[in-house]
Amino acid sequence: MITSAQNPRVRQIALLMEKSRKRREEGIFVIEGIRELNIALQSGYSISELYYCPAILRDPFSVLPLKQNSFPVEELDPRIYDKLAYRGTTEGIIALMHSRDLSPEQIPLKENPLIIVLESVEKPGNLGAILRTADAVAADAVLVCDPLTDIYNPNIIRSSLGCLFSVPTVPCSSETACAWLSSRHIGIVAANCQSDRLYHQADYSGPIAVVMGTEDKGLSPFWRTKADLNIKIPMRGRIDSLNVSVATAVLCFEIVRQRNK
Amino acid sequence: MITSAQNPRVRQIALLMEKSRKRREEGIFVIEGIRELNIALQSGYSISELYYCPAILRDPFSVLPLKQNSFPVEELDPRIYDKLAYRGTTEGIIALMHSRDLSPEQIPLKENPLIIVLESVEKPGNLGAILRTADAVAADAVLVCDPLTDIYNPNIIRSSLGCLFSVPTVPCSSETACAWLSSRHIGIVAANCQSDRLYHQADYSGPIAVVMGTEDKGLSPFWRTKADLNIKIPMRGRIDSLNVSVATAVLCFEIVRQRNK
Repeated sequence: MITSAQNPRVRQIALLMEKSRKRREEGIFVIEGIRELNIALQSGYSISELYYCPAILRDPFSVLPLKQNSFPVEELDPRIYDKLAYRGTTEGIIALMHSRDLSPEQIPLKENPLIIVLESVEKPGNLGAILRTADAVAADAVLVCDPLTDIYNPNIIRSSLGCLFSVPTVPCSSETACAWLSSRHIGIVAANCQSDRLYHQADYSGPIAVVMGTEDKGLSPFWRTKADLNIKIPMRGRIDSLNVSVATAVLCFEIVRQRNK
Repeated sequence: MITSAQNPRVRQIALLMEKSRKRREEGIFVIEGIRELNIALQSGYSISELYYCPAILRDPFSVLPLKQNSFPVEELDPRIYDKLAYRGTTEGIIALMHSRDLSPEQIPLKENPLIIVLESVEKPGNLGAILRTADAVAADAVLVCDPLTDIYNPNIIRSSLGCLFSVPTVPCSSETACAWLSSRHIGIVAANCQSDRLYHQADYSGPIAVVMGTEDKGLSPFWRTKADLNIKIPMRGRIDSLNVSVATAVLCFEIVRQRNK
């Protein structure tokens, strides 16, 4: 059992949680929590190292869909676990995972795709909430264009409740995203507060990518001009924009509503 | 000009930003930013003390819909402003404001009311996003039931972009909220993932209060039993709930869409 905070493996976990660069260099990221880890495993991610706190969780393999095989398993003293874990003593499990680099070409598309495209979203909580929405509407993928951080940020994993793994999430440039959408004949619908077209008066029956601008500046000129359709959500109050995760959901659920009428 | 961080007024502002209890005791809270302050003033809030940083904003009255009259105005040295302000040197204005205690009885109701009821929402960012939605759909009020913090938390003001002021926001107990809704014949629609009724198949033409449970536990038994209608948002993926601000928006925009068809 690891009992010292100075243990090199403990410091390694802490670094992988904090540093985006470290995660990229190692191709490893950290998952905390049973639900999140299960969703990742069922989505094809694999464990590099598994840590658990026996005082909280007696047998980690009792809550996972696998038996121990090719990866090291280590016990953590409760004080060490407490230091590492965001949620304190709630679940008792931390895993180092192999990250995946998905390109748009690798996205498995369903018959009538719904894609969510985000321009460099800034707040992990917003991306997390969008991934929950993407999971709920069974979106084919979320393209995170020109991201400011890597997608394996622990705050993103946490606020997505693991949907980062259930929804194919692809960081790429706006140019790459746009070229791929066009090659697949997926129509680009851009949320643009300057449009005259109300979102619920458009027809979403075909393959669609919904493009959302940044929290601060909204949609960039690049996507505004690439869009096949600019739509807006009506704003009847004092401000001219919704929270980006809220706006994404309003559009996606309207698309799903129309398609399932 | 105030140049010392030890100045008692500077310490007073910092305390009012940090401490919910201090805000309650004094009946004073802090607004930072021109847009937020303007929305508050236009919504009937009044200034107790005004602070500005001349290096950033030469004349605060050039951006406010009022002339100096009954409140003190003080200049802040840029270093002091930087310490206090969340947004750094972006806008240069900080105001101490008189808080308001609104009861449900004082909510000005429009003809066919739409009320948002939240069970003790935990995260300021979620409440802020919901207030932006409430502003956008012209909701009559947001009732924050059994709140865990006061509504004048700077993170709520900030993430609401000032909609905390444009939307009547009323902290009260669940019992008070429920009794008031009933006295006004406002139907209670509860978001409940265990319901069989899909949200977009319900009729929202009458006066409605949408009730949302907490981030963690969802809707409480109290509201589940008080609801005239339990509805759910379809979840087609791995998880069983949306972010609370996202779910609130999906319901509110569907109500508005139906009412404006």
